[in-house]
Amino acid sequence: MKQIILSALFSVLLLSTACSSEKVSNNDNQANTAAVINNIMTRTSIRSFTNEPIGADTLTTLVKAGMAAPTAVNRQPWSFIVVTERQMLDSLMNVHPYSNLATATAAIIVCGDMEKALDGFGRDYWIQDCSAASENILLAAHAYGLGAVWCGIYPNPNVIPGVKRVLSIPGSVTPLSLITLGHPADNPEPKDKWIPENVHYQKY
Amino acid sequence: MKQIILSALFSVLLLSTACSSEKVSNNDNQANTAAVINNIMTRTSIRSFTNEPIGADTLTTLVKAGMAAPTAVNRQPWSFIVVTERQMLDSLMNVHPYSNLATATAAIIVCGDMEKALDGFGRDYWIQDCSAASENILLAAHAYGLGAVWCGIYPNPNVIPGVKRVLSIPGSVTPLSLITLGHPADNPEPKDKWIPENVHYQKY
Repeated sequence: MKQIILSALFSVLLLSTACSSEKVSNNDNQANTAAVINNIMTRTSIRSFTNEPIGADTLTTLVKAGMAAPTAVNRQPWSFIVVTERQMLDSLMNVHPYSNLATATAAIIVCGDMEKALDGFGRDYWIQDCSAASENILLAAHAYGLGAVWCGIYPNPNVIPGVKRVLSIPGSVTPLSLITLGHPADNPEPKDKWIPENVHYQKY
Repeated sequence: MKQIILSALFSVLLLSTACSSEKVSNNDNQANTAAVINNIMTRTSIRSFTNEPIGADTLTTLVKAGMAAPTAVNRQPWSFIVVTERQMLDSLMNVHPYSNLATATAAIIVCGDMEKALDGFGRDYWIQDCSAASENILLAAHAYGLGAVWCGIYPNPNVIPGVKRVLSIPGSVTPLSLITLGHPADNPEPKDKWIPENVHYQKY
């Protein structure tokens, strides 16, 4: 009788351990899913920053996140320029007045490299590849509690030449976006951009 | 004496509660940051799927994630088409042979809407906006444990007309990408695309 009770107790113990570990694992997965979806949904443009600098390791992780984006035929036709010096940020602001760099502590410029791009009509996939990289950087910055805003460069003819000159970018490389970065000084509400009418099912 | 001991015990209790809740909160933030960065770094193209369908709610969340992307001057110049019917997926495969739809259970086609796009040089920002939306959908799919692959449509002249015909897409709307979706049947290693030589500091 004692043995049966002990055996039953042991079974219950095993079962509860198994259930609990299964549950923890599921909870972990669910928490991770929720964290990613929440990060995508709550990201919004931040244009005002404190003077606290961003760590070099964090900036490297942001660029790594950019390089993790998919590219057409895996060409990775890009280069990234990380700017943290105040004088360089000011020079960029002079040639790109809408870059929101006044209080920023860093910027990452995502560039397309035509020497790595595909030929023919596929050449322009660099724009999509560098856009996916830019979005990854915005999402990674938000995950670190940083503020960021995507400032367009390409195809604006008024800012491309100035940005190329300030950053000594060679002819075969085209800057697509300037991602302004810093620790946020404000906390704007994310926009709710869900418009069900923009979704079609099976066909347009 | 008894009162002093009780008071000291109470202080320790308060302190440990405060420390513990601070720590949990920090751990939560760190776990969320790690979840987002890990999701970005481990996403990779999946081209083979099981026959388990994707829930309608999940598909809606994927489109919501797409619509959470930033757009130039907040124009949101896009439409999304969700395809789940086998016959429609087959028709798409006929006009887009590289769409990896053979075993897919769903596809989301991200389109630019020229009636919502900017004028002048800013018109082409729809490509960047829809690319950011496409990347959000890929990342959200990965967060749900789904497999996905970004199949280019625009600017491929060989597939745009066929995709528009199959999906009854009007003239002012251009399909940019077809995101093939399903529960993964394989588990390929994510590519390590980190190339430090692709990063420049302060200037190119």
